[in-house]
Amino acid sequence: MFLLPVPEYMEGEPVNVNEFQELARQALPKIYYDYYSGGAEDEYTLKQNVEAFQGITIRPRILVDVSRIDLSTTVLGYQISVPILIAPSAKHKWAHPEGEVATARAAALCDTIMILSYRSTCTIEEVASSCNAVRFFQCYVYKRRDISANLLQRAERCGYKAIVLTVDSPRLGRREKDIKNKMVNPQLKNFEGLISTRVSTDDGSKIEAFDANTAFDASLSWKDIGWLRSITNLPVLLKGVLTHEDAIKAVEVGVDGIVVSNHGARQGKGRFYVGIVMELALLVDLGAPWMTDIKATILSHQRRFTIQAFVISSVSWINICFTPVVFLACTSLLYT
Amino acid sequence: MFLLPVPEYMEGEPVNVNEFQELARQALPKIYYDYYSGGAEDEYTLKQNVEAFQGITIRPRILVDVSRIDLSTTVLGYQISVPILIAPSAKHKWAHPEGEVATARAAALCDTIMILSYRSTCTIEEVASSCNAVRFFQCYVYKRRDISANLLQRAERCGYKAIVLTVDSPRLGRREKDIKNKMVNPQLKNFEGLISTRVSTDDGSKIEAFDANTAFDASLSWKDIGWLRSITNLPVLLKGVLTHEDAIKAVEVGVDGIVVSNHGARQGKGRFYVGIVMELALLVDLGAPWMTDIKATILSHQRRFTIQAFVISSVSWINICFTPVVFLACTSLLYT
Amino acid sequence: MFLLPVPEYMEGEPVNVNEFQELARQALPKIYYDYYSGGAEDEYTLKQNVEAFQGITIRPRILVDVSRIDLSTTVLGYQISVPILIAPSAKHKWAHPEGEVATARAAALCDTIMILSYRSTCTIEEVASSCNAVRFFQCYVYKRRDISANLLQRAERCGYKAIVLTVDSPRLGRREKDIKNKMVNPQLKNFEGLISTRVSTDDGSKIEAFDANTAFDASLSWKDIGWLRSITNLPVLLKGVLTHEDAIKAVEVGVDGIVVSNHGARQGKGRFYVGIVMELALLVDLGAPWMTDIKATILSHQRRFTIQAFVISSVSWINICFTPVVFLACTSLLYT
Amino acid sequence: MFLLPVPEYMEGEPVNVNEFQELARQALPKIYYDYYSGGAEDEYTLKQNVEAFQGITIRPRILVDVSRIDLSTTVLGYQISVPILIAPSAKHKWAHPEGEVATARAAALCDTIMILSYRSTCTIEEVASSCNAVRFFQCYVYKRRDISANLLQRAERCGYKAIVLTVDSPRLGRREKDIKNKMVNPQLKNFEGLISTRVSTDDGSKIEAFDANTAFDASLSWKDIGWLRSITNLPVLLKGVLTHEDAIKAVEVGVDGIVVSNHGARQGKGRFYVGIVMELALLVDLGAPWMTDIKATILSHQRRFTIQAFVISSVSWINICFTPVVFLACTSLLYT
Repeated sequence: MFLLPVPEYMEGEPVNVNEFQELARQALPKIYYDYYSGGAEDEYTLKQNVEAFQGITIRPRILVDVSRIDLSTTVLGYQISVPILIAPSAKHKWAHPEGEVATARAAALCDTIMILSYRSTCTIEEVASSCNAVRFFQCYVYKRRDISANLLQRAERCGYKAIVLTVDSPRLGRREKDIKNKMVNPQLKNFEGLISTRVSTDDGSKIEAFDANTAFDASLSWKDIGWLRSITNLPVLLKGVLTHEDAIKAVEVGVDGIVVSNHGARQGKGRFYVGIVMELALLVDLGAPWMTDIKATILSHQRRFTIQAFVISSVSWINICFTPVVFLACTSLLYT
Repeated sequence: MFLLPVPEYMEGEPVNVNEFQELARQALPKIYYDYYSGGAEDEYTLKQNVEAFQGITIRPRILVDVSRIDLSTTVLGYQISVPILIAPSAKHKWAHPEGEVATARAAALCDTIMILSYRSTCTIEEVASSCNAVRFFQCYVYKRRDISANLLQRAERCGYKAIVLTVDSPRLGRREKDIKNKMVNPQLKNFEGLISTRVSTDDGSKIEAFDANTAFDASLSWKDIGWLRSITNLPVLLKGVLTHEDAIKAVEVGVDGIVVSNHGARQGKGRFYVGIVMELALLVDLGAPWMTDIKATILSHQRRFTIQAFVISSVSWINICFTPVVFLACTSLLYT
Repeated sequence: MFLLPVPEYMEGEPVNVNEFQELARQALPKIYYDYYSGGAEDEYTLKQNVEAFQGITIRPRILVDVSRIDLSTTVLGYQISVPILIAPSAKHKWAHPEGEVATARAAALCDTIMILSYRSTCTIEEVASSCNAVRFFQCYVYKRRDISANLLQRAERCGYKAIVLTVDSPRLGRREKDIKNKMVNPQLKNFEGLISTRVSTDDGSKIEAFDANTAFDASLSWKDIGWLRSITNLPVLLKGVLTHEDAIKAVEVGVDGIVVSNHGARQGKGRFYVGIVMELALLVDLGAPWMTDIKATILSHQRRFTIQAFVISSVSWINICFTPVVFLACTSLLYT
Repeated sequence: MFLLPVPEYMEGEPVNVNEFQELARQALPKIYYDYYSGGAEDEYTLKQNVEAFQGITIRPRILVDVSRIDLSTTVLGYQISVPILIAPSAKHKWAHPEGEVATARAAALCDTIMILSYRSTCTIEEVASSCNAVRFFQCYVYKRRDISANLLQRAERCGYKAIVLTVDSPRLGRREKDIKNKMVNPQLKNFEGLISTRVSTDDGSKIEAFDANTAFDASLSWKDIGWLRSITNLPVLLKGVLTHEDAIKAVEVGVDGIVVSNHGARQGKGRFYVGIVMELALLVDLGAPWMTDIKATILSHQRRFTIQAFVISSVSWINICFTPVVFLACTSLLYT
């Protein structure tokens, strides 16, 4: 993962996320650290992500009574203490033996929502029974729709409160570090008894050999949102929306929210990077004049998303007391 | 503090402020140098400050008679030799045994105004009796308003000519170097006999443990300017104005001037950086067409600030003969 | 050639074009590597080329059925599997003993078009007989028009399908590395029996001593397109168009296509760099409002080029199995 | 002088101006090299100058008959072979024993114009008698007008063809390297018998102790152009014009030409840098729409300067055969 240079005075306790990431680099096997932290291709887009966040400036207003600050908000009706969710990220046990169960407990502790990745190393059921955090479940749509249905229905049965459908990966990005590391795809916990996800050919990186390039349904299109509705009663959020055209389409098909994300720059060089997206997003709300057309278009569809939360990918951004690793692979914006 | 690389030819006497700062780095204990020179968080905003100043260009006009140049101006009616004031900065004795008394003498010598920080290591009274410089007094509003009143009335009694109220710090910025250095807050000279400002817990940086996060009144708002007026007859300047919206508000509530400042980038990453602010400020006066709306708004309130001076934070920018340290932590623009 | 730093994790098999180029650097004699990879003068424009490509962002649309993707297109009526052609580049035998014959076989294998450089180290005839790839032939117009005619008619007779006339080099760019390396111009294979192209003076780089500065017809102008038509029935593409004004002229004189190219930044500092050109090009198609005038002008001539393909200079971008070198000296856009 | 890094392949004969400058650095005493190559203050503006030149792109037009290229032009009626003049620069003997006499011979050889600096190490008369180059004479206006008159009348008598009055230096820029080097001002050759220009105090850099800060007439203004006209019949060019407002004024007072220059970034940080100036300049001619107002204003004064030449500061850019040093301290644009 592209990261600002660790300042020379780094010593003693870590004081910022950059220093936590450096500790993670020291603590983790290279193959896992690279997996968590790498971006697609030459990582130029990852670098742009970081720089774009740096470039964001705030216009502080003065003489406002801030003696009582309430950062709490609601997402899909659920009250959370801060407008920050834990984004879906894969394979927490690679970073810490307790895996997603610990992350869920941290979410509960912080009174926020965890979005569990379908690639979790703890099962849907294990995470559900570990604590009372509000949880969403992230997945793709597979060619074998019965498997998608199985996962979604298990999530619904286990009390997950929404489905987060990632829509930016009809093929996975080319992650060169994983190729170099000859990363292999393990059996996914949530698929045990359903399908083998282990891949044993020895042709480059195997991490994508299952799913994106073989299992995901590349024919998925807007009309399939209806199918999703037919197999689950949970609200549906689309993750990976990168253009205002698609934000409008999302309004039209009636999904319950969108997550503006470039997948942590892991889905391909040149992806419109999140900084710009965020800028656009913020501009929508700040009413920059040249956004008028876009706003008008959205409003004319009688519904408009409002920014609800930041969604932060971090195995342990919150459960900082449990594990020594922290990373910020992806920050997205959730609109509902 | 972010600084341009010291040029390789640095040798012999210092010839610019960068070289003075390098000397300060060599002369001071790290904990003090870091305190003076550090910015908030990853210091990206501090870096932007410096770059923004570098980027400012001047449009020199030619064939103008410059045989007699008069840089003198008046601020709140006081004649000064150059449009440069000494900004309030804390704890001069950490840099030099004579502290703010020496700085005040330097201001007197240069025929300009010193703004004394409430965190001075010489008392309000000591500085007042040391020389006949025109002095302003900088402070915050505390939860215990009697303490604010005490300080302001002492300043007024001692002949300080204006109150500079810093309004950009309902909470202090996260200064990572201070946290690393386990900086502790000493007893503040001006509070002796009033309240203990010493903090002895050992939880990270203690420099902010008193005041910003506990003592400052976070409920302070525009309506409280009236309270300030009720306890002092001195003119009031607001320091920390960063938006044109708040500049307009300042006109409306009738303060006597504003200082456009981002607190030397010490008050948080992403603060709208001073370079941009200065650009806006300069543009107001240069009449760039797209500033028309802002100007119209300000003018419609029947009053308009004009740029009066630069306000430079520097323990010894002026009293260069007294002490080996110089730094330029913050340059602001004063409008009255 | 300017190149991004090879990432530190480079080890094992190469995974991207940067790593292939690094291998080429290790495998080739410096004089040849420099010839292939160098840009004109201080290579600032070459650096701009690379950065411009990096800066291009894509606006991915979501939920589009991509289960069947067909990248095939037609160029001048010839069906190719991907919108990528092999651009003309000189002297493939310097990189690999089989030279352009191997490149042509690779083009055939990949079902795309190879553009043979007149400076090839295999003859027009050898390349033609080596495989059934669709081939175009690139050349200049020489002072001795009979030589141009000879080459073009041989190409036509050998079944080449179009003439690509490079128009950006009335003089060759100043390639400082070649000068340093005292590169000499060898006898060109395609000119054997026609004219000696060997140059034996010892005054700096000799690579340009033949052709550009002595043999090319510097008086060539738009009216000469007619002459070209008179000696060949093949379609004519102009390579090196860099301005919209000239794109319009190309429409007017009725050529069959243009290649927007800055000659891989080999033709002089400050040449309008390909990234900008590509941006303009893309904008034309994306309908950016400020392109309206240009579009209107083009359309008013009743004909408009559409982007047909990328044209990539690479001795072995495609025939990766034949040779260890890969470089991307120039990427152009082909409009027909 | 700020310079691009010398490319690693520098070896053998120099091939570009950067490599010549590196040779000069090796050959000259540091005090002289610094004097020739340094910019004002932190040299940020000098860095901007270089980057601005790099950033200039050219829009090459194709298929234009370039078999006969004529770069010759006329400046004030004098025919020169290329639109490049030698700008006035001081003290050529510090670089080469023959000094300005050799430079003048080089100008004659190249059929262009040399502008002699009043600070030359050969006298006005020596340069005049050395060759038949067309020469202009550069000077300032001194408090003692009789000295200005003396110099100008000697130049006129010696056949210099124009006066170039530098108007951007009522005070000299702060050149930190000269201060470090304790540069002292020698007796100026052209002032022998008139006034002592030697300065022997030991307070920092003495290079400016004579002239700019003591001898130059800081009261010089537009009305004094009339005085200049009264003592010389030569045409007058103003050097150092940096704003369009002053370009218009120059038209109004009827000078014969202007030189748009930022004095090689030697006259102060933040001086509007030459790259931007050149861009403005070029835009005037290229007819960029937003220049219309400026053009209209200029035209309404019934006269408009046209770009006549580049004016290059270089002790030996041209007389490359005479001396091993080359530098490009300043490139300006001459309008007449």
